[in-house]
Amino acid sequence: MTAPPLDLTQDAGALTAALCDVPSVSGDERALADAIETALRTLPHLRVERDGEVVIARTDLGHAERVVLAGHIDTVPIHENLPTRVDGDRLLGCGTCDMKSGVAIQLKLAAEVATPNRDVTYVFYDCEEVEAERNGLNRIARTRPDWLAADFAVLLEPSGAVVEGGCQGTMRVHVSTRGKRAHSARSWMGENAIHAASAVLDRLRAYDPAQVEIDGLTYREGLNAIGIVGGVAGNVIPDACTVSVNYRFAPVRSEADAEAHLRDVFAGFDVELADSAPAAMPGLSQPAAAAFVAAIGGEPRAKLGWTDVARFSAVGVPAVNFGPGDPSMAHTQDEYVDLPAVEHCYRTMRAWLTA
Amino acid sequence: MTAPPLDLTQDAGALTAALCDVPSVSGDERALADAIETALRTLPHLRVERDGEVVIARTDLGHAERVVLAGHIDTVPIHENLPTRVDGDRLLGCGTCDMKSGVAIQLKLAAEVATPNRDVTYVFYDCEEVEAERNGLNRIARTRPDWLAADFAVLLEPSGAVVEGGCQGTMRVHVSTRGKRAHSARSWMGENAIHAASAVLDRLRAYDPAQVEIDGLTYREGLNAIGIVGGVAGNVIPDACTVSVNYRFAPVRSEADAEAHLRDVFAGFDVELADSAPAAMPGLSQPAAAAFVAAIGGEPRAKLGWTDVARFSAVGVPAVNFGPGDPSMAHTQDEYVDLPAVEHCYRTMRAWLTA
Repeated sequence: MTAPPLDLTQDAGALTAALCDVPSVSGDERALADAIETALRTLPHLRVERDGEVVIARTDLGHAERVVLAGHIDTVPIHENLPTRVDGDRLLGCGTCDMKSGVAIQLKLAAEVATPNRDVTYVFYDCEEVEAERNGLNRIARTRPDWLAADFAVLLEPSGAVVEGGCQGTMRVHVSTRGKRAHSARSWMGENAIHAASAVLDRLRAYDPAQVEIDGLTYREGLNAIGIVGGVAGNVIPDACTVSVNYRFAPVRSEADAEAHLRDVFAGFDVELADSAPAAMPGLSQPAAAAFVAAIGGEPRAKLGWTDVARFSAVGVPAVNFGPGDPSMAHTQDEYVDLPAVEHCYRTMRAWLTA
Repeated sequence: MTAPPLDLTQDAGALTAALCDVPSVSGDERALADAIETALRTLPHLRVERDGEVVIARTDLGHAERVVLAGHIDTVPIHENLPTRVDGDRLLGCGTCDMKSGVAIQLKLAAEVATPNRDVTYVFYDCEEVEAERNGLNRIARTRPDWLAADFAVLLEPSGAVVEGGCQGTMRVHVSTRGKRAHSARSWMGENAIHAASAVLDRLRAYDPAQVEIDGLTYREGLNAIGIVGGVAGNVIPDACTVSVNYRFAPVRSEADAEAHLRDVFAGFDVELADSAPAAMPGLSQPAAAAFVAAIGGEPRAKLGWTDVARFSAVGVPAVNFGPGDPSMAHTQDEYVDLPAVEHCYRTMRAWLTA
């Protein structure tokens, strides 16, 4: 599928709608990546690179400082919420908040700030909403780390137009129960693994997630079933049931700590690690981050969702989240972004790059 | 796939092994049905009919009485338990108990009792282990009821070589919970439908199944989850979870009663009827059934598993279960049949048909 050409001269809100109306559920980003690459290649002040569905554009003005502005172009599955629609000051639809409004701001800055006061690398990447191994930024960090080299990075993930520091880690495990098959007409001859899974769900319901404070920011953890599957046939007592669990953990924990904690919570059950991504400490005391916070203004807060801030953090680039969407609307059917917030973030960042 | 020809002159135990070694999981019975049809067509004293994977063979000696001997040729899914193996007096493997040992007895009687003392209709059918709509006997009862007309029917389902009366009904319902999607990093913004399903599982664990006595036979009910599924994506709080439940109910309940009972047990949840099959009263007081019981000997007992006895019962043909396997071994990985029991049942029935 070929998307219509992107008009980077329209305002950031209208550009957000245009980006959302090119569906790009994780794994299916090609049409949007093509449209972004095509639009950027018309801009003579940028050098553009393409690797899979990752598009990178950079100025090369010889400034002493280089910053990365990064955003993912994929979304969670569409849930009867496309095409976008406008309701007053709001733009509603899949991707409006998480995070095509941020991507629109990146594209507007790339097009309109031809001579920024620091060199800028714009990074657009795929598969952020799925397993870490498929993440486009993850791949580039391994295969082309030079493309990401910078003094500071801003991820334009939804942050309510507030600078958000660090991010929580995320880990998925499969917790399984075992039983014994039998004909369901003689259920007392078997052991029902699905019934046994109720003890796993009970532990989840009883779990009291921690709230952790770091550098004055509060990280609120979470532990949730995100999938369950069990059963053999309509007349067989099932001998296996698996609950898939997602743990969001504060930056005080390493991935190893998080895994040990989950094995403790689910002691007595089979626990298998599916995937994980580390948390990132806020790092707001580092000079480049502090300078950005000062330019943008407002009171920083903790980032609860996992973002690729952690990948920059891991390679020594201080990074923060800053984007217009309300993070609590991400991944909901009613996802939206306030159009004035999109315009505000665009103007604030433009001022930072042109002051 | 073409199965090797069946040798109906070997003993009933060896024939059972030969039948089991032609896999015939529900929906995949063609090779075995072909082999049975081919073997029966060599017998000049039988008239053979074929309809889909149903094979029917009948004597036409003009006797005043006609009996049906019926068995299903499908099995539950294979679970690393084929090919069959012999261990002492036991034959182990998928289908040995439920119910290719019964099918072997039917085939031996069909081949060796050329002039029975009552006319016999041998019925071999498919898809007994799956949804009622796919059941071959069910189809024949609707489309060719004349093929099943008889004074009495014996289903050679595993009954431990004891006459078993009636059968329990079976019903499947889907019990669903609803929630609200949210990003799993902010789980408190959503409602987790999988966590909510723990209340459904708790009701199943707390359920105390009835034991019902009819005509001196005891029917033991059962209520079990046989499947569960829920989840949207690895980072989304799920908004739906469905537990599939199988209810085995005593012949005092109609299907309507059973459904009302389940709606009561799962009050507050979404309950959707998936499929059901009625129970059958024991009917042992009817003359043809009583005569068979007298000829076979022993003390009759209640049939717990659902069998197609209920279909004969519904069309007014008294029917019982009688077969060599231990019914509690049906659908287990360790399924087996005792070879002396196969021989015993074969000889007992042969004596009944030739006395």
